[in-house]
Amino acid sequence: VKRKERSISEYVEGVLASDRTILAQAITLVESNAERHMAMAQQLLQQLLPHTGNSLRIGITGVPGAGKSTFIEAFGTFLCERGHRVAVLAVDPSSSLTGGSILGDKTRMEQLARHPRAFIRPSPSGGTLGGVHRKTRETMLLCEAAGYDVILIETVGVGQSEGMVRGMVDFFLLLALTGAGDELQGMKKGIMELVDAIVINKADGDNKKRAELAKAEYNQILHYLRHATKGWKTKAYTCSALLGEGIAEIWDVIQQFMEVTKKSGVFMERRRMQMKDWLYAMIKDYLETSFFAHPIVKQTLPSLEREVMDGKQPVTMAVQQLIEQYERGAR
Amino acid sequence: VKRKERSISEYVEGVLASDRTILAQAITLVESNAERHMAMAQQLLQQLLPHTGNSLRIGITGVPGAGKSTFIEAFGTFLCERGHRVAVLAVDPSSSLTGGSILGDKTRMEQLARHPRAFIRPSPSGGTLGGVHRKTRETMLLCEAAGYDVILIETVGVGQSEGMVRGMVDFFLLLALTGAGDELQGMKKGIMELVDAIVINKADGDNKKRAELAKAEYNQILHYLRHATKGWKTKAYTCSALLGEGIAEIWDVIQQFMEVTKKSGVFMERRRMQMKDWLYAMIKDYLETSFFAHPIVKQTLPSLEREVMDGKQPVTMAVQQLIEQYERGAR
Repeated sequence: VKRKERSISEYVEGVLASDRTILAQAITLVESNAERHMAMAQQLLQQLLPHTGNSLRIGITGVPGAGKSTFIEAFGTFLCERGHRVAVLAVDPSSSLTGGSILGDKTRMEQLARHPRAFIRPSPSGGTLGGVHRKTRETMLLCEAAGYDVILIETVGVGQSEGMVRGMVDFFLLLALTGAGDELQGMKKGIMELVDAIVINKADGDNKKRAELAKAEYNQILHYLRHATKGWKTKAYTCSALLGEGIAEIWDVIQQFMEVTKKSGVFMERRRMQMKDWLYAMIKDYLETSFFAHPIVKQTLPSLEREVMDGKQPVTMAVQQLIEQYERGAR
Repeated sequence: VKRKERSISEYVEGVLASDRTILAQAITLVESNAERHMAMAQQLLQQLLPHTGNSLRIGITGVPGAGKSTFIEAFGTFLCERGHRVAVLAVDPSSSLTGGSILGDKTRMEQLARHPRAFIRPSPSGGTLGGVHRKTRETMLLCEAAGYDVILIETVGVGQSEGMVRGMVDFFLLLALTGAGDELQGMKKGIMELVDAIVINKADGDNKKRAELAKAEYNQILHYLRHATKGWKTKAYTCSALLGEGIAEIWDVIQQFMEVTKKSGVFMERRRMQMKDWLYAMIKDYLETSFFAHPIVKQTLPSLEREVMDGKQPVTMAVQQLIEQYERGAR
């Protein structure tokens, strides 16, 4: 039997009442690419907007194997036990390609997944980077309206997704391992200048000493780099997500960060600029998507691109040709 | 008396004959924003295209005070004396705003400016970043057609211009001073991962020891960062542009770079990708410029932007509204 579709007011009431089933369904609505669903989702968001923005938004990145799941499990559980309500979202660029989902997997965070104060949602699959951006941001808003006061957004440090996540969080954390040199070379360029803290995980057992060394190394490098947030000095820390050591200290750091940036106005200014940047990113995304999907462009561009790459046609002339043909066709 | 306008074939012949006056006039044509000039410029470039691409394109960046002019004077003169023909161009983001020109100032490179094998052209002033990009690239092509086999493109390490310059050169050099920490924090984020060499200038007199220290520091940081070019390890070097010391060594490094990257195919692959990236950048520039300059958009966007920043309207809804109004108006 097909489930009866909910009305917008049912969604609004359900989300505000923090009904997990309805929240999950509202997220599915926001993630849908069907036009009717998108229209409904926007009305829903419009009504929920006054109830959003009250969370602390934390991004967490790191190479595969850095222990992101274990860290989120430990950190999320720690926060839940202190009375917070924690939503875990994921931005997984690879899932757009494979259609699968690596991050935000509940089976990798069993303890947190069972916690009544936690809500875990895997990465939206499929679609463009712009689409994933919108879906993640709107899911975040739904979670805030449902009363989650800490949002953790997980991503892998390999591509364009870090910039996107940096653009939607207040605090951005890089989870690292010992052996900074080799590891950083596998990461996105400039990643260290995007984050507000570097946490060296797995500082336990035989690894403890090496983790301390890595911390010193990272702090030395950070000394020469630009900091991601005005008035905040990005530093390296250690923790053992496995043993739960250092987790409370990281929470202290984040609270200090909040205090400093809220007092200086940097916090609110960043949030406002993030909204503006997102607005412009969406507009540009629309412009490009509709242009590059146009039949005339799809037909003309490949050969023009080849001529340009082979040095047979000046770029400006190629662009002029393409646009003339496009504008003639669009009329 | 107004100068009689040259024909395209006069320009072509003049540039290929390396006539400095005609080259300068051809660049003025390329820099013009008048529609008739732009059409002529494209025909000119079309005809010159087979004679381009034969130079070594070197970008030079560094904070104000790093001694870029002195370095280019010394390096350029060194190359001219060894038989090369050197063109010096500048990309100056500030000149777009102020209408003035700081870089590529001939009075700061007197010796080089007088050299018969050198050609210095200051930054094109005014216009968008995309416009400056096009003008600089096309000026570079004109200089290549005129037989200049080393193109030096000077820029300041403060904004978006480094990405642009990186996108048009084969080798990118960061000119630095001693006291790496303080200096780098004033530079563009991720700049060290954009360059193929860091040259610590002013390694002379009392400063020599500190320059050596800075070199060691930079090399240590570079160890942890990603390299800009596949198969090439970015390292730090010292020189004294004032005394002409270390200049020959830097030229050796660049020649090694050329050998390695040409052999591996990275050199040609980068050039092809640069053309492709430029093509797409120009298309996007056109799309954005024509959208944001549209009267309906200019009228609607400011209030939508405010509502979005104040959290009064969901971003997706604002974008949909804007685009609906735009499309209705464009029909």
